[in-house]
Amino acid sequence: MPVKLNSRDADFETRFVEMLSAKREDSADVNDVVAGIIADVRARGDDALCELTAKFDGMDLSADQMRFSPEEIEAEIAKVGAEDRAALALAAERIRAYHARQMPEDVSWTDPDGATLGWRWSAVSAAGLYVPGGQAAYPSSVLMNAIPARVAGVDRLVICVPTPNGVVNPLVLLAAQLAGVEEIYRIGGAQAIAAMAYGTDTIRPVDKITGPGNAYVAAAKRQVFGRVGIDMIAGPSEVLVIAEGDQNPDWLAWDLLAQAEHDADAQSILITTDEALADAVAGAVDRILPGLPRAKIAGASWRDYGTIIITRDLEEAANLSNRVAPEHLELCVEDPQALAPLCRHAGAIFLGAFTPEAVGDYVSGPNHVLPTARSARFSSGLSVLDFMKRTTMAQLTPGALAAIGPAAERLARAEGLQAHGASVAARLAVLNEEVG
Amino acid sequence: MPVKLNSRDADFETRFVEMLSAKREDSADVNDVVAGIIADVRARGDDALCELTAKFDGMDLSADQMRFSPEEIEAEIAKVGAEDRAALALAAERIRAYHARQMPEDVSWTDPDGATLGWRWSAVSAAGLYVPGGQAAYPSSVLMNAIPARVAGVDRLVICVPTPNGVVNPLVLLAAQLAGVEEIYRIGGAQAIAAMAYGTDTIRPVDKITGPGNAYVAAAKRQVFGRVGIDMIAGPSEVLVIAEGDQNPDWLAWDLLAQAEHDADAQSILITTDEALADAVAGAVDRILPGLPRAKIAGASWRDYGTIIITRDLEEAANLSNRVAPEHLELCVEDPQALAPLCRHAGAIFLGAFTPEAVGDYVSGPNHVLPTARSARFSSGLSVLDFMKRTTMAQLTPGALAAIGPAAERLARAEGLQAHGASVAARLAVLNEEVG
Repeated sequence: MPVKLNSRDADFETRFVEMLSAKREDSADVNDVVAGIIADVRARGDDALCELTAKFDGMDLSADQMRFSPEEIEAEIAKVGAEDRAALALAAERIRAYHARQMPEDVSWTDPDGATLGWRWSAVSAAGLYVPGGQAAYPSSVLMNAIPARVAGVDRLVICVPTPNGVVNPLVLLAAQLAGVEEIYRIGGAQAIAAMAYGTDTIRPVDKITGPGNAYVAAAKRQVFGRVGIDMIAGPSEVLVIAEGDQNPDWLAWDLLAQAEHDADAQSILITTDEALADAVAGAVDRILPGLPRAKIAGASWRDYGTIIITRDLEEAANLSNRVAPEHLELCVEDPQALAPLCRHAGAIFLGAFTPEAVGDYVSGPNHVLPTARSARFSSGLSVLDFMKRTTMAQLTPGALAAIGPAAERLARAEGLQAHGASVAARLAVLNEEVG
Repeated sequence: MPVKLNSRDADFETRFVEMLSAKREDSADVNDVVAGIIADVRARGDDALCELTAKFDGMDLSADQMRFSPEEIEAEIAKVGAEDRAALALAAERIRAYHARQMPEDVSWTDPDGATLGWRWSAVSAAGLYVPGGQAAYPSSVLMNAIPARVAGVDRLVICVPTPNGVVNPLVLLAAQLAGVEEIYRIGGAQAIAAMAYGTDTIRPVDKITGPGNAYVAAAKRQVFGRVGIDMIAGPSEVLVIAEGDQNPDWLAWDLLAQAEHDADAQSILITTDEALADAVAGAVDRILPGLPRAKIAGASWRDYGTIIITRDLEEAANLSNRVAPEHLELCVEDPQALAPLCRHAGAIFLGAFTPEAVGDYVSGPNHVLPTARSARFSSGLSVLDFMKRTTMAQLTPGALAAIGPAAERLARAEGLQAHGASVAARLAVLNEEVG
């Protein structure tokens, strides 16, 4: 049974903190295995990739078979029906339009002292996108990772996707094509991350690696971090729904179950001011659940982590939501625009009854790669900025150096860094001579 | 002796790659020690902090002595002379002015389908700044970390700084005051990072931790990452200077030595089209070095990692610089504005002969916390954005859901996520009824 709390209860704070600190992820310690795989790929390159792919994916590949040929890609894509194709194209176009607005601008100005200052954005040269194989091969994730990279202007974009026993999801290849990615390798697991970070004869290294994966992939990303950039390490997904009493309980039940069906470790939380609605939603979940194809997964999630909280008012609901800092936050209330400013920590906010979280997973436009496990307190979803970096710029005139250089010299000497100070002083001396 | 390379030489590529891949950091494996310290602070809180501070910093503190009182801060700050105070105030003001321009704007628009989309930036609630003790206690670093957090709007800002044997640098406290930080603890090392990440009775936890530190501090930051956000893990510092023949060799020598004096692992690289200038700079370094207070450190850095490269032209110099992706890049050339666009990967660019890197360490305005060890390929210096996060927003009208919902439903079913699809379908069914 899901937990049901009421903020008026004496033990509420204790039980809320208990819910907050429940550890949802069983973090298998695979670090040593992964370190071995990375070392092997670094030492033996393609040979290691072929052996590991035979071992883990049951695929006998030679190095020149790792990459999908254009013909192989076309043949797979041809299997996709017209309706799926149209839906994926709509999603790609909307994701592209949203992310295009994230492109940052370069800035430059000259201050009264004569210092021209600013910064400049530039794209990462090469990025690698990991795509899980098997059931978790989500074409929507390909779009959500590859399109921001393309919009950012990344020169070279690579996909690694395992094809266990040769099976690939045609929709994944179509998503890659829609996003403009042509360099796709049948390699998965920690070995794919190692190959993209360090390079082999066949797979040239990249500068940044993003994308979801299992515990091995996550551990490999952590281990190559520093050599390359990585996106976040995602934990189990979560949704928090704040609802007023007049909402449709079936809709809310579907939203909670949509989150729960992802993963037995996913979490669905309903906060409402109306106890009758809470009971109606709980009843609807119980009615709907058994009929779901993924009833076992969704049922485990709802039983172990499902939570319903009754609050005095919406402000209290927002405050509790801020302590959860949910990945997804639905505001199913009469005036969501008034409630949103109170909700400070969330990866994505879905406003109003007609914005179910599921549209955000696919077609609304914002990214679905979002901070989990309370990390929305300090981090953001994937964006164009993750595939760019900012270089700061400064140019001083002799006059500007004369104005602010002496302060730099003084601070350098206070920090015991004489050469720092002298690099300024040597220039000022020549300037003073010229003036003198 | 520093390495001297010429891009016309047959073995140039081999030797350049050798230089690029030289490992400059001796990464002591302190992970187990640090894991023990973190576990101890989590388990025993303030008691552990007091014991560890006695052990590592030779300071007997009770829990209520950890925090500097306002009177203690004022008494230390009173020791700072007027000129140092003025220099630090100038630096603070210029850093504030630069970072104020980084404040991002919220964006919102409504697309033709009726979806109102956008994103909203908000500050992290609480941030902790680590400041090393002893000789490496740089007041400039306090400004560079604390001011962006203040500009971002962080509610609560904490500093932890070890005070070995009770010694504190008054300039560090003045820098904290100038940046508006009043919550300062005499705690250092991995125990300070653990306290800020997990909280104790005395030190409430924060959401983000930034700031430099030794191997223990760096390892602790890596280990608490996920629980809190962290900034980059900085490696040894580096500068790359691109110079034309007419530049002042003494100025360039000072710039190379300013980098070298930081750390025996620091790296200074000169790339020039003019062999005579290269020799003149090398000579100037040899002449200046012995007289430096930090001659031993600077000498070791220049001997082990110093590099001079002669290239055919400036374009080749820029291409080589991009492969280094230096933390600091000086363009000591006639037309630095023309060369800068060719330099794609660098943490900060200093344009022209009157912009020595040292002014950027203190007073020019841009942040001096910058990506090292080639990570400028994929990451940026510290900024206001590091203390903020972006929440994406979406609100669909019934019409918008009718327009794009069916594509979401189709993709959800293609990914085997039935409840996702049904959460959209349930709403569309009611809309269709209402229309019908």
